[in-house]
Amino acid sequence: MKQEKIHPISLGRKRKRTKAVFVGSVKIGGDAPVVVQSMTSTDTRDIKATLRQIKTLEFCGCEVVRLAIPDEEALGAFGVIRKAAKLPLIADIHFNYRLAIGALEKGADGIRINPGNLSRARIREVVTAAIGRKAVIRIGVNSGSLQKDILARHGGPTAEALVESAMENIALLEDLGFAAIKVSLKSSDVPTMVRAYRLVSKRTRYPLHLGVTEAGGILGSAVKSSLGIGILLSEGIGDTIRVSVTGDPVDEVRIAYGILRALGIRQVGPDIVSCPTCGRCEIDLVSLVNEVEKRLAGMKDHLKIALMGCAVNGPGEASEADIGIAGGKGSGLLFKKGRVIRKVREKEFISALMDEIDKMIAERGRKHAIL
Amino acid sequence: MKQEKIHPISLGRKRKRTKAVFVGSVKIGGDAPVVVQSMTSTDTRDIKATLRQIKTLEFCGCEVVRLAIPDEEALGAFGVIRKAAKLPLIADIHFNYRLAIGALEKGADGIRINPGNLSRARIREVVTAAIGRKAVIRIGVNSGSLQKDILARHGGPTAEALVESAMENIALLEDLGFAAIKVSLKSSDVPTMVRAYRLVSKRTRYPLHLGVTEAGGILGSAVKSSLGIGILLSEGIGDTIRVSVTGDPVDEVRIAYGILRALGIRQVGPDIVSCPTCGRCEIDLVSLVNEVEKRLAGMKDHLKIALMGCAVNGPGEASEADIGIAGGKGSGLLFKKGRVIRKVREKEFISALMDEIDKMIAERGRKHAIL
Repeated sequence: MKQEKIHPISLGRKRKRTKAVFVGSVKIGGDAPVVVQSMTSTDTRDIKATLRQIKTLEFCGCEVVRLAIPDEEALGAFGVIRKAAKLPLIADIHFNYRLAIGALEKGADGIRINPGNLSRARIREVVTAAIGRKAVIRIGVNSGSLQKDILARHGGPTAEALVESAMENIALLEDLGFAAIKVSLKSSDVPTMVRAYRLVSKRTRYPLHLGVTEAGGILGSAVKSSLGIGILLSEGIGDTIRVSVTGDPVDEVRIAYGILRALGIRQVGPDIVSCPTCGRCEIDLVSLVNEVEKRLAGMKDHLKIALMGCAVNGPGEASEADIGIAGGKGSGLLFKKGRVIRKVREKEFISALMDEIDKMIAERGRKHAIL
Repeated sequence: MKQEKIHPISLGRKRKRTKAVFVGSVKIGGDAPVVVQSMTSTDTRDIKATLRQIKTLEFCGCEVVRLAIPDEEALGAFGVIRKAAKLPLIADIHFNYRLAIGALEKGADGIRINPGNLSRARIREVVTAAIGRKAVIRIGVNSGSLQKDILARHGGPTAEALVESAMENIALLEDLGFAAIKVSLKSSDVPTMVRAYRLVSKRTRYPLHLGVTEAGGILGSAVKSSLGIGILLSEGIGDTIRVSVTGDPVDEVRIAYGILRALGIRQVGPDIVSCPTCGRCEIDLVSLVNEVEKRLAGMKDHLKIALMGCAVNGPGEASEADIGIAGGKGSGLLFKKGRVIRKVREKEFISALMDEIDKMIAERGRKHAIL
């Protein structure tokens, strides 16, 4: 993805400049592109399954992976996984500060600590252990696990409560001379999440990790995550994003790149423009779109592909795309870079499209990966 | 849905006040809630299939349905459909102004005309036909079908080009004394669409119909539509929305309500909060979420349901929800309105949840529909 174009501006708003940190070799914040993260859903103790999932995530463009380390056995497995995996790995720690220290010793590129689940004294010990190592600490505040005193003061997990927890812990880390900090303030409520990040972005220059927490199944999460993460990115807020899906984490990465692509922030993967079909459509567009999506799954090269059912918007959209089909009755016009190149019968749509896509990618001098 | 709470404010931004129009009995603009629209994907000439789809859309909460009328045969079918269907119906017209006039004669509650596909002279005839009837006209500008002169002037389908087309046609309708106008400026490019609506909302007080056009398959559309429609709604712009999905229009309605619900604009349907699962999860959460989503499909009552995998955020989220489960090892704590009511074994999760949901809905004195 070296030739990927990076646009620091979305909807006219320049990205807020933050301090940069490194998670392994991946830069987050500063002038770095918005980084895509995910988290394994396997049992961390199952080394083989976890490594397989990390590889699949990497293949789909995930740039940083987080793993839960709930116990000593998972910590042991993490050591093996860290040695075998290429991507930067973050250890997700709750309740037990010794596991955080253990993960750092085993080479974690970063750890995520949840201020609500570790006492201030314990956080101090973790920070001391992290000093001298090149590990990042994310202060991962979450609406579901805020400190009791803060909850009581604010009457619930409000935006202000999330910010207070984050700022308190930033101060704690800074007092210990630690600066490789990322911050997240996730809420399962989109407006609360948006307001919390807006507030904190005015009060800190550490890079912000955006996410709507506990966002639900794939469709629900696509909606909530696009809203929460997208509204903030469009305001120039956010350095790395993690979409949360109850399901396959590969879908988290697909949705994340969908958000970045649609806002024009990162151009990774195919952008499919296709009409909703209506009483005017005379080709089987739904099957065509499904098949093209399936064939291009995992493709990192950016192409705008228009798959259109009729003559109303078909020629217009197809001519604005890199490659397009404007359907008619059982056939369609194949467009490439704004020009009609030939008429194609419906049963040859897929082969014609794939041929042209392959050619276009080859012309760019790069290979594309197909799952 | 009479008891639905309407919030005119999202993320602190008050909705921009527009003129109100009526599509049949449905008010759009002014102080009306943001109205959810969809469009049939059946062949309009297939009266049975089209009526079936309209009924399904109505069941799922769709409030206005649009149908394509590409020819005389479809126009004839539309007359029959109009008599049989309850929902307000909009006739979607391109190229042929006689079909627009015909649809108005057959009782269309509104027509959508595309300035790019009807000459100014023809629009004039359509408006003349609509005067005296209680039909609304949507000026439906689309990036794929802008007038050639405007495209040439702007060098492509830019936000400014979309706005110019809309403003020109508003003036045309106003000159003819017609005021029951809605306006849309759809682009398949999210930033263009957002900028176009922002611009036009400063220049007109007619209600705005929001949509990202040709938004792709279900997941791609969920992302693009949530971004485009969501960013605008969060700024107080938008009176009615249509999500465009290449696939089942029921998914358009699901996504639309998902956007409105997540922004706190309308509280329709269940809000499912569920964690992404990780190495810490000891229940089969993915199956649980899928099953709950399936069982509650079509439910219009609003309930916040938290389905959580472990003790990190589980109890916190479950206690913020109307009904929640915080999973442990093969079992979970059942929460209702912030209080633990009992421990439930994993295989009884579904029956326990559905019982509590039924009770809670019954307590509200309303029935809920299950597909």
